[in-house]
Amino acid sequence: MEQRILGLDPGLAILGFGAILCQPSLGRDVAGNVGVMDFGIIQTSAGTAMGDRLCTIYDDLNSVLDAVKPDLVAIEKLFFYRMGNTIAVAQARGVVMLVLAQHQLPFVEFTPAQVKQALTGYGAADKHAVQEAVARELALATIPKPDDAADALALALAAWFQH
Amino acid sequence: MEQRILGLDPGLAILGFGAILCQPSLGRDVAGNVGVMDFGIIQTSAGTAMGDRLCTIYDDLNSVLDAVKPDLVAIEKLFFYRMGNTIAVAQARGVVMLVLAQHQLPFVEFTPAQVKQALTGYGAADKHAVQEAVARELALATIPKPDDAADALALALAAWFQH
Repeated sequence: MEQRILGLDPGLAILGFGAILCQPSLGRDVAGNVGVMDFGIIQTSAGTAMGDRLCTIYDDLNSVLDAVKPDLVAIEKLFFYRMGNTIAVAQARGVVMLVLAQHQLPFVEFTPAQVKQALTGYGAADKHAVQEAVARELALATIPKPDDAADALALALAAWFQH
Repeated sequence: MEQRILGLDPGLAILGFGAILCQPSLGRDVAGNVGVMDFGIIQTSAGTAMGDRLCTIYDDLNSVLDAVKPDLVAIEKLFFYRMGNTIAVAQARGVVMLVLAQHQLPFVEFTPAQVKQALTGYGAADKHAVQEAVARELALATIPKPDDAADALALALAAWFQH
C-alpha cells in the first residue's frame, strides 16, 4: 500500500512543503519505490500584520493538506539557533502544529543534522550535497527550487528512510 | 456606546482571559463606567501532545470570543524573559493571534511594565498591588482568581485607560 509523506519546513515568511509518494512494499533500494508528488512554498509578506500572515499560513496549509492528503508529516525541529526571529518562527510553527492536530495527522520531527545524516550519511553535509541527494532519490533532473521546498522534500525523505 | 475589551495573557499551560464592559461616554473618573463581564483561564495539560494542546486553545478561545464578542483585545507582549519555555509560549501565542485575525479583531499589546504603570502609576509595582488595583477599578469585593485571570483583567483595564 502506498504512503504519502509531507515534509514541512516552517517559517513565517516562507514555509516550504514537499510531498512524496512511497511504495513501502518495494523496499528501500528498489528504483521507483518513491517519487515526488508536489512541492512548493507558502509565502507571507513582511509588510502584513502578524495575525494576517498566520491566517495565510493556516488557510494555505489546509489547502496543501486537502490536496496531498498525507499519511505522515515530517517537520523540522525548532531550535534557538536563529535568535532574532525565533518568536516569529515559533508562532508560525504553532499554527502549523495546530493544523496538523486538527487533521489528526501523525508527525515526526527531525533536526537539520538528522536530515543531513539521513540523506547523505554525514550530519554536517553542506546544503548542496543534501539537495543533490534529494534530486537523486526522487529521480529529478534538476534540484527542486526554492531551497525551502527542497528542504521540505529532504524532511519527507528522512521520514521515509526511517520508516 | 459601550465597549467590550478582552484581556488575554497567553501561555501554553494556562491562558488567562478577562473581559470588561466600558462606558466611554461616562469618562474615566465616573464610578460605574467600567465593570467585569467575565474572567477565567483556558488550561491544557503537560501530559498532552503539543498539537492537541494548541487545538484546545484554538477551540476554547473561539468559545470565549463567541461569548464575549469583544470590540478590542489587549494582549501581553512576548519577550525572551522566560527562556526555557519561550518557544512553547510563542507557539501558543501564534494560535491566539491566528484566532484574533480570523475574527478580524483589533488588538493592542502591552509589556508587563506598561500594565503595572497603567494600573498603579508605577512600572515596577508588585503583583499584589496590581491585583488590588484591578479589584478596586472593577469594584470587586475580592481579588479575581487565579492570577492569570487577574493579569488578563489588568491588560483589559490598561487598554481601557489608554483608550
